[in-house]
Amino acid sequence: MSILVVGSVAFDSVETPFGKAEDVLGGSATYFSTSASYFTDVSLVAVVGEDFPDEHVTLLTDRKVDVSGLTKVPGETFRWKGRYDYDLNQAHTLETHLNVFSDFEPEIPEDHRDNDFLFLANIDPELQLKVLDQVTGARFTACDTMNFWIESKIEKVKEVFSRVDLVVINEGEAREFAGEASLVKAAKKVLALGPRIIIIKRGEYGAIMFTETTVFSAPAYPLEEIFDPTGAGDTFAGGMMGLVASTGDISEANIRRAIVLGSTMASFNVEAFSLDRLKDLKTEEINDRYGEFKRLTHFEGL
Amino acid sequence: MSILVVGSVAFDSVETPFGKAEDVLGGSATYFSTSASYFTDVSLVAVVGEDFPDEHVTLLTDRKVDVSGLTKVPGETFRWKGRYDYDLNQAHTLETHLNVFSDFEPEIPEDHRDNDFLFLANIDPELQLKVLDQVTGARFTACDTMNFWIESKIEKVKEVFSRVDLVVINEGEAREFAGEASLVKAAKKVLALGPRIIIIKRGEYGAIMFTETTVFSAPAYPLEEIFDPTGAGDTFAGGMMGLVASTGDISEANIRRAIVLGSTMASFNVEAFSLDRLKDLKTEEINDRYGEFKRLTHFEGL
Repeated sequence: MSILVVGSVAFDSVETPFGKAEDVLGGSATYFSTSASYFTDVSLVAVVGEDFPDEHVTLLTDRKVDVSGLTKVPGETFRWKGRYDYDLNQAHTLETHLNVFSDFEPEIPEDHRDNDFLFLANIDPELQLKVLDQVTGARFTACDTMNFWIESKIEKVKEVFSRVDLVVINEGEAREFAGEASLVKAAKKVLALGPRIIIIKRGEYGAIMFTETTVFSAPAYPLEEIFDPTGAGDTFAGGMMGLVASTGDISEANIRRAIVLGSTMASFNVEAFSLDRLKDLKTEEINDRYGEFKRLTHFEGL
Repeated sequence: MSILVVGSVAFDSVETPFGKAEDVLGGSATYFSTSASYFTDVSLVAVVGEDFPDEHVTLLTDRKVDVSGLTKVPGETFRWKGRYDYDLNQAHTLETHLNVFSDFEPEIPEDHRDNDFLFLANIDPELQLKVLDQVTGARFTACDTMNFWIESKIEKVKEVFSRVDLVVINEGEAREFAGEASLVKAAKKVLALGPRIIIIKRGEYGAIMFTETTVFSAPAYPLEEIFDPTGAGDTFAGGMMGLVASTGDISEANIRRAIVLGSTMASFNVEAFSLDRLKDLKTEEINDRYGEFKRLTHFEGL
């Protein structure tokens, strides 16, 4: 089954201890859809400005991403500029220019309104709600958010959480949202709003999933060098939702597999700037690395 | 087979967001030996002052710990005072009074010098070296250390690392020791000194083991409340070495099991101040929680 993703397509300028990249392709929907495209059909809804080059669109269409919902409007594309120091878990935002994104009103193409799987990437929760109003037939919906919305529109964030099946969120943001130092308590507070599952992203420490009755902890792949963490969370979500949609299986056991596949995809993405590594992976290397997660976590009973 | 541990026995005063405890039993060798005592015979070498009450010794002997190497000398017992804020991964030391520990010269009783398993808890690396000089017949040796020694006696720390089979160390200390932000690189630098295995403790994120050819990542048990993290690292090491010694199996597969058992023991210890939880565990609850680690980490192949 196919996934619909609504989020940002952007130009990123990034500095890491290993180098820098200027005005390269970025954005939550870009990373998500490229990652998910290895497993299932993906349609993207986003907006870009007149400065957005065709080659970036080609990168997406080469991955068979349906870009019929990618609107080009007068003005400049959303730009983000950030820096990572040696603590690569923490992005320092230097500049944010919403540009055409500030007037973005997601209009879901008619033929995507009954999509089975929907991912609301990190955008204004009011826009996420507007998408949920349009895509009423989805079987499984998931969302991400960020500290900016938690601090400025927490009631809207809560409303989004109450209307999705799965919340994907960073560790620090989960704690901030719930006002709890304990991650277990924070997860419970989110689940109490309605979603069946919460997946908390912990950067180089991996991810942890909570349902009402179970917990699953997955490590990140231990890389010698994390070249650029930009997009890791969206790449994770793309791989994760990609497997769920491709199998049509929303069982807890399959979500566990999906989390490991998401971590696999994220581990490739951080090996290079922008989508340089993510855009051209082989099925065999994905499967091999998934297998390495098995070896990384295996232990026998007592 | 039995374990010999050399380390500290102390009085701790601890404040956490959940309460405080004053002058309670603590010390690296105390936590280690109590934890290991559930799985094998343990002998402890340490020093205390005249103020050390018999009831604390009884707690150890009740757990069948051999305290013939626990020396009582004139003066006061080592005292540590610390505070944890909501970030329970980070202890803030308020006071350290070495007292009788400042003249400690570990003298290993004759009948423990050919012990098969040796754990050098976090003490001055020069003392760790003196212990290694005395315990020449050990089949498997492990050590811990801390930032204080890395900053003041790094050459001695390196010498200790070069003479043991296994290094157990905190994440921040591993990075500081190696001067590397990448944990993979830090682990390689430690292994290059000689040990076959390094286990890096990551607090609420669990532990990660590196050998020359393999990596194993284990989560921490997700607790709703971490009441007091004091001693968690030594409790981890005690459970881990306890299993290795009790089975006599130093294979990589058994070290993986041992890491999970160490994490199991640490998860109990942080549920209460001092050794209040650790001193009186049932085999069944240990086995049950080990089983929960299995469920916590399980996922199927693609």
